[in-house]
Amino acid sequence: MILTVTLNAALDVTYDVERLSHDEPVRVRTVQARAGGKGINVAMILASLGTPVTATGLCGGHRGQAIRDGLRAAAVVDVLWPIAAESRQTVVAMADDGVFSEYDEPGPAVSTAEWEGFLSAYGALLAECRVVVCAGSLPPGVPDTAYATLITMAHDHNCRVVLDTSGAALRAGVEARPDVVKVSRAELMESMGHDFTDGSLDLTDPESVVRCLSAIGGPAIVTLGAEGAVAVGSGCRIRVRPPPRRGNPVGAGDAFTAGLVCDDVSGSSPRSRLAFAAALSASSVGIAGAGLVDRGLAAELLDLVTVEDL
Amino acid sequence: MILTVTLNAALDVTYDVERLSHDEPVRVRTVQARAGGKGINVAMILASLGTPVTATGLCGGHRGQAIRDGLRAAAVVDVLWPIAAESRQTVVAMADDGVFSEYDEPGPAVSTAEWEGFLSAYGALLAECRVVVCAGSLPPGVPDTAYATLITMAHDHNCRVVLDTSGAALRAGVEARPDVVKVSRAELMESMGHDFTDGSLDLTDPESVVRCLSAIGGPAIVTLGAEGAVAVGSGCRIRVRPPPRRGNPVGAGDAFTAGLVCDDVSGSSPRSRLAFAAALSASSVGIAGAGLVDRGLAAELLDLVTVEDL
Repeated sequence: MILTVTLNAALDVTYDVERLSHDEPVRVRTVQARAGGKGINVAMILASLGTPVTATGLCGGHRGQAIRDGLRAAAVVDVLWPIAAESRQTVVAMADDGVFSEYDEPGPAVSTAEWEGFLSAYGALLAECRVVVCAGSLPPGVPDTAYATLITMAHDHNCRVVLDTSGAALRAGVEARPDVVKVSRAELMESMGHDFTDGSLDLTDPESVVRCLSAIGGPAIVTLGAEGAVAVGSGCRIRVRPPPRRGNPVGAGDAFTAGLVCDDVSGSSPRSRLAFAAALSASSVGIAGAGLVDRGLAAELLDLVTVEDL
Repeated sequence: MILTVTLNAALDVTYDVERLSHDEPVRVRTVQARAGGKGINVAMILASLGTPVTATGLCGGHRGQAIRDGLRAAAVVDVLWPIAAESRQTVVAMADDGVFSEYDEPGPAVSTAEWEGFLSAYGALLAECRVVVCAGSLPPGVPDTAYATLITMAHDHNCRVVLDTSGAALRAGVEARPDVVKVSRAELMESMGHDFTDGSLDLTDPESVVRCLSAIGGPAIVTLGAEGAVAVGSGCRIRVRPPPRRGNPVGAGDAFTAGLVCDDVSGSSPRSRLAFAAALSASSVGIAGAGLVDRGLAAELLDLVTVEDL
């Protein structure tokens, strides 16, 4: 099975409003609430593509229950580990003129006992597991080395691991040699700025990107938004470019990750995987709501994705 | 017992942020979530004053459960009637410079069966009831005549009723002759503008206010923020003025209502009731969070409240 790990699950709430304003109440016209956090987004996309998927991680409180209900409605198997604190909420208010306000709550405090309980449950899941997707931020109380621990445990069970995170969690995680590291341009710049390079990263220069990704020390992919992605692996350096798409790119990175691991790919070469991931990611652009893809559109876009060796 | 009715209960979420901005995520530093809606605010204040209180009304979903947990923690007896839809949330982000953003979700859709179920449960509660506080807005699906129906049922059981609402719910509610109508200046202006007067209301002129309140046809009180309140009843016309207070006045109106009905008043004349309500309301100004009062401060302020006949 495919297992996604979301240590900082969220309830993502989106408001449709006429306009934004300060110092007076803004009337919300419609409310959408969905289970979120990167790993859960990936799981929801995989489930929508017909790929069986199990979601673990941490969640708690009333929002945690709402997150679980969302997973169940999306046919994702829910084995999230319960914590006492309330899971975070994100609130995005979108106005008619396209301007938005976004509020990101801090994650819930996780106790040592809760973290150890999760590790035990995670270990028990790995026996049936083929691929683990570790994605998103870490809540307070979970150590920076969390993903490194999870990757090592997964490798002990011969599971492959995709890591998609940022900052200290990324820097510690790559030490455990995940099978693929997937980062966005912003995450790469943030992380490189600290540890990996001398600051000479030029994201408009593919060779510069390749050098940076090589510093990660294993197969790595950086997503470049509308410009596609660059992948550096054992003996391959590939750039994929999707056809131009307009619209809200929120969640496109999670769609890319889902495309990398889903069952529904013709051919299993890195080139065909990357092309499908780029097409699936592009199909999500412009769809309201993170974590939604259009499988039919992705099939059409796949013919238009270009793949080149660098 | 005292029963408060909150047909459009809310989970009131407050964010502390450094500053507000658009088109980029705002990091929330701390999150406060509390049970809200006018009737629930009144109930929480009464409970904090040691007055036994029961809260009914409608609530549903995960937020409904959070609202129930908040009532339990505040020692309010929870007999809210369950509905299928998710109760509304309000989100207020307060920045360091005092600027705020407020988002008010629409209320949950209430079915006819749910409304009828609530009416039946409400009727059963009235046998043990002395005072009913009907406060706040009506959610979709509940008729404008809702409060009129509740007032008539309460009077059939010899319960006294305080009504605090606005708009169509107020205009329909006063037809059932509640024992006291309590409105804010804004609610009075909104409602008068439609039905009660010829538009000649001058809120700076007490006589004009008295004329407007008289149009309600029974005892009525308008709260005027820092300027106190004007009350018009059978044979009395009273103005109360609290000492000046600085700070956030959110919830001061609900504190006023709680002061009108709580057990903890020396003397039961309209004058002493009104003076205590004004002092309690003033004690809530500047306390972060709606629905919080300072009993000790209220006792000090009570000596400084002026009461005059108009």
